[in-house]
Amino acid sequence: MSPTAHSLPTPLLVLDAEQLDRNIDAMAAVRPGPALRPHVKAFKSTELARHVARRGGHDSFCCATLREMEGMVAAGLDHDLLLANETLDTDRLARIVEQSDGRITVAVDSTETITAAAGTGASVLIDVDVGMPRCGCAPAEAGRLADLARAAGLEVRGVMGYEGHVVGEPDRGRRVAAVHDSMQLLRRALEDVGGGIASAGGTGTFDLHDWADEVQAGSYLLMDTHYARLGLPFLQALTVETTVISSSPDRGWAVLDAGLKAFGMDHGNPSADRWEIFYCSDEHTTVLPDQNGSLPGVGDRVALTPAHIDPTVACHESIHVVSDGEVVDRWPVDLRGW
Amino acid sequence: MSPTAHSLPTPLLVLDAEQLDRNIDAMAAVRPGPALRPHVKAFKSTELARHVARRGGHDSFCCATLREMEGMVAAGLDHDLLLANETLDTDRLARIVEQSDGRITVAVDSTETITAAAGTGASVLIDVDVGMPRCGCAPAEAGRLADLARAAGLEVRGVMGYEGHVVGEPDRGRRVAAVHDSMQLLRRALEDVGGGIASAGGTGTFDLHDWADEVQAGSYLLMDTHYARLGLPFLQALTVETTVISSSPDRGWAVLDAGLKAFGMDHGNPSADRWEIFYCSDEHTTVLPDQNGSLPGVGDRVALTPAHIDPTVACHESIHVVSDGEVVDRWPVDLRGW
Repeated sequence: MSPTAHSLPTPLLVLDAEQLDRNIDAMAAVRPGPALRPHVKAFKSTELARHVARRGGHDSFCCATLREMEGMVAAGLDHDLLLANETLDTDRLARIVEQSDGRITVAVDSTETITAAAGTGASVLIDVDVGMPRCGCAPAEAGRLADLARAAGLEVRGVMGYEGHVVGEPDRGRRVAAVHDSMQLLRRALEDVGGGIASAGGTGTFDLHDWADEVQAGSYLLMDTHYARLGLPFLQALTVETTVISSSPDRGWAVLDAGLKAFGMDHGNPSADRWEIFYCSDEHTTVLPDQNGSLPGVGDRVALTPAHIDPTVACHESIHVVSDGEVVDRWPVDLRGW
Repeated sequence: MSPTAHSLPTPLLVLDAEQLDRNIDAMAAVRPGPALRPHVKAFKSTELARHVARRGGHDSFCCATLREMEGMVAAGLDHDLLLANETLDTDRLARIVEQSDGRITVAVDSTETITAAAGTGASVLIDVDVGMPRCGCAPAEAGRLADLARAAGLEVRGVMGYEGHVVGEPDRGRRVAAVHDSMQLLRRALEDVGGGIASAGGTGTFDLHDWADEVQAGSYLLMDTHYARLGLPFLQALTVETTVISSSPDRGWAVLDAGLKAFGMDHGNPSADRWEIFYCSDEHTTVLPDQNGSLPGVGDRVALTPAHIDPTVACHESIHVVSDGEVVDRWPVDLRGW
C-alpha cells in the first residue's frame, strides 16, 4: 500500500496530481505544442518536466541557469532547449552543446555574451529590453548585436523579450495594454534582427500573446497566492504540508514545523486556509486562531500555500505526488543550485 | 595551485577564513567551552561545526531540525547534542539516540511532545515561553510538565527559553532590560522544574546573560546585515559572489547572476558595498549606479552581503573557504532539508 502524505515527515512538498494535470491541460488548450516553452525554473525537476512534455505535448523547454540546462540534457529533455538568460561561461555552455543530441540556444544581449557563445555550437536569441529593467539590450541595439553574432559565426534564431514588469499586474485590461506595448518593441527589434522566432511572456500573460511565437511560462503548473490574484484558469497544485508541534489556546497561537527556510519569502508569508499567519521564523510558522477562535492541536497537519512558487520549490529536495490521498510518486527537485 | 573564488562559477558562497576565526575567538573569549552551545541551524555544515569545536573549544551543539541532529551524529559531533525544538517523531528521535555515542536532549513543551520523547532514550529540557510567541510552555506550566516527564521515565536536565523577541533589538539598553525580564521568567520556571541547566539566548544577546548556563548562538560565525546593526564584536565573514551578466550605463542599471533563490529574503534584499540594490528576481539582482554614476561591467565580480544568514546558507550546496585570496577548502552544506 502506498503511504499517505500524512505518514511522512514534514515539512513536505505535496503535489496534487489531478490539479497538476488540469493546469497542464488548460495551458495546452490555449498554447499547444511549441506555442508554449515551459520554464523549468518554476519547478526544477526533470521528472515534472517529463510529465509536462508527455501530457501537454510541449517538447521545447527554457531554463534560467546552466545547472538546469545540464540536468535537462542529462535527462534527454533537450530536443530544443533555451537558456533564457545571459552567461559568460563558455566552457560549460560548450559542454552542454557537446552532450546534447538536441538544439541548444542561449540569450545574448551584449558583445561579451556574444563572444562567450561564439564557438560553443549554441544558437542565440537576441534578448531585448521590453520594459523590465533587467537583462536585454535596448531595442534599437538588437539589429547591431544580431549582425555581430552572425559575424562571430552564430546562428541567430530571433528575439526574446520578457515583459516581467507586466505579468503580475492584477488588472487584465492593463495587462493587455502593457503586453501590446512590449510586443511592439519586440516586433520592431525582430525586424532588425531577422531569424523568425519571437519568445516572450509568462504565466500572467499566457493568453495575451497573439503575435509572439512562444510563451515562456512555468508557474501555471503549481501556482502560488501571488498568481492566484490574477484570476487565471490555473489552480493551486502544490502545498507545503506541516505538523503542529506546539499549540496554546490560552495564549492564542499554535506553531507549525515549517518556517521561512521552507518558503520563498520575497512575496511575503505563505497562507493557510483556516488560520491566519502571525509570522514565520527559520523553522516555524506561528498561526492565530480561526474565526471561531479555535486553533489546531499538537500533531495536526496543516497545509500552507506558498506566496511565490519558484523559490519555494527550490528549498526542497523532492516533490511528493499525491493522487486520491496516496503518495504515488516522489519527484526529486534535481535542478537546484547553479 | 589553489583556485581563486573568481575562477569558480557563480553564485558562490565565499567564506573569509580569517574573519570566521576572529568571530570564533571573540565569542569564545566571552563564552568559553560549554558556556556556548553553537547553533547549527545558522550554517548547516558539519565541517564548519567541526572547525568551531576545534578552534572555539565548544563541544555541545544545538540543532533546529532532526536532519541536523542526524547529520551531527553521523559526523561524530554529538558529545552533547540538543534539539532546541519540539518534535513528535518518536521513531527518528529514537534512531538518533541509538546511533549516538553522546548525549541527546530534546526540548518539550506539552504532554504530546513528552509522550513522543518517552522511551527514546533522549533527555529533555522543558521549553519555556519567555516572551516570544512560538514554542515553549507558559512559565507556570513548566513544573507540571517536568513532573509529567519524570513520571514518563525521562531525565529532565533543566529549562530552555529563547528570548527571540529581544535578540534583534538595536538599542543595547533595551536588550539588557528585556533579557533580564525574560530570564526572571526562566529562573522561576527552573525553580519549579529542577535539573540545573538553563539554556537561552542568541547572537544578539550573547554577552547579556549573567545567569543562564549556556547561550545558543550561531549567526555570530558568519553574520549578516541584520545583526550588523547591533554593533556586536563580530564582522561579516560570508558573502555571495556574483558575476555581472548585463550592464547598461545608458539605461542606468547592471544585472548580477544571483537573485532571490540565492538569499534568504525575509529580512529584505542583500547589500553591495558600492552599488545600490534596485531589486531581486529569481536568478538576478539589478543594481543602480554608485555615487560617481558608474556601474560594474559585464564579467566583473560583485560580492553581496546577505540580510539574513541562516536561510541564505540553506540555499547553497557548499561554502568555499578563502584564505589569502585562494580557495583552501570546500565545506558541504550537508544539513539542509528536514
